[in-house]
Amino acid sequence: MDFSYDGSNFNGYQKQPGKRTIQEEIEKVLTSINGGSKVIICSSGRTDAKVNAIHQKAHFDLIKKVTLYKLKKALNSYLPDDIHVNDIIKVDGDFHARYMVKYKIYEYKINTTEYNPLQRNHVFQYCKPLNISKMKKALRYFKGTHDFTTFTSAENKKENKVRKIYSATLTQKNGIITITFMANGFLKYQVRNMVGTLIKIGEEKVPFNIIPTLFDKKDRKSAFLCAPGQGLTLVDVIY
Amino acid sequence: MDFSYDGSNFNGYQKQPGKRTIQEEIEKVLTSINGGSKVIICSSGRTDAKVNAIHQKAHFDLIKKVTLYKLKKALNSYLPDDIHVNDIIKVDGDFHARYMVKYKIYEYKINTTEYNPLQRNHVFQYCKPLNISKMKKALRYFKGTHDFTTFTSAENKKENKVRKIYSATLTQKNGIITITFMANGFLKYQVRNMVGTLIKIGEEKVPFNIIPTLFDKKDRKSAFLCAPGQGLTLVDVIY
Repeated sequence: MDFSYDGSNFNGYQKQPGKRTIQEEIEKVLTSINGGSKVIICSSGRTDAKVNAIHQKAHFDLIKKVTLYKLKKALNSYLPDDIHVNDIIKVDGDFHARYMVKYKIYEYKINTTEYNPLQRNHVFQYCKPLNISKMKKALRYFKGTHDFTTFTSAENKKENKVRKIYSATLTQKNGIITITFMANGFLKYQVRNMVGTLIKIGEEKVPFNIIPTLFDKKDRKSAFLCAPGQGLTLVDVIY
Repeated sequence: MDFSYDGSNFNGYQKQPGKRTIQEEIEKVLTSINGGSKVIICSSGRTDAKVNAIHQKAHFDLIKKVTLYKLKKALNSYLPDDIHVNDIIKVDGDFHARYMVKYKIYEYKINTTEYNPLQRNHVFQYCKPLNISKMKKALRYFKGTHDFTTFTSAENKKENKVRKIYSATLTQKNGIITITFMANGFLKYQVRNMVGTLIKIGEEKVPFNIIPTLFDKKDRKSAFLCAPGQGLTLVDVIY
């Protein structure tokens, strides 16, 4: 299933008791379509509170026989208006939406001009100028295979923190900076921590060539602010 | 005062008892800045429920002596995050934000592709293809000076329904159609009714050259659906 969501009114993707989450909303509807038999969905990965998605992916099993066309229609009729199913296809029994990810693409947007209330849920309203050319130079250091311990959550005890970033680009249009990362996977808070450091570089508070030093430290405390969730969008997941 | 707002959580611009409106939110803050002495703001015109604005304009009088810089800062600190003051300048005592309008620019956005939850508050999620070339041909008929009785609210008893449209353009990018109108003023629901008729033309349900016939009828019932408020944005007001 390929689906999109506006993260503004969710406590993130993953189910949590008493909180509104994307996973819970979708599972509720799927379970009802499945005649009450509980459906669990397995996504390509979680997204944090406020984070948006355009082409998130997930797999699930249904007992109920239903055409893909009707399934999509039923889902979109019952889902709230901040979640939408773009497409559903049948996959092999051994397909896994999380373990089989080849690439993920994330985009982070920063408004460097006057605060814009129309953008506030999808673009970080930073509202000050940034040195774009320094940020672009810094961005190059993120490309390639690195241990991203410095750029993930301090509580993240996951063994392997090595990821490969295939591309990292920065464009600017009408005062909005868009930073796009494509990698074989991302750690918790990784994009937002990388962007936080890029903002510090754009503010000219640290030199653009600080990134290799930060990689070497392997310590979250050495990096800078974690950029807010609403600027981040999961653009695509490729298998 | 030049200000912007995201219309999604408002019952329109104009004050109404018991409802959340843009005018009320701004007057509350201004009155408090003015030491409790009631401030009334006069805008370039109302906008309906859900309608957004990027550069709405209004005038008001303050008793309290305060620099423009501090006034803007105080307003933006106390206003909710869906309203923002872009700029404040001092004007002559005889300036009037409504009567002195020279041009107003409105933009209407229509998504003709898959429903997108991230756009739902600012782009009409029509989600079907439209015949753009017919809509463009139809648009030409709106340009110039016309009696817009057919395209305003049936309850609108205002004497003069003649307005001059200086420009009417249509562009399309990534499946989003943007229709922009610049006029010396607009009647209630006028843009949304014109867009409703343009959509019918784009659906090929009525011919593109129906517009002059509709003008002649001078009857709201002869036009078509009123396009939903969330697709509409007041882009600028020029004096």
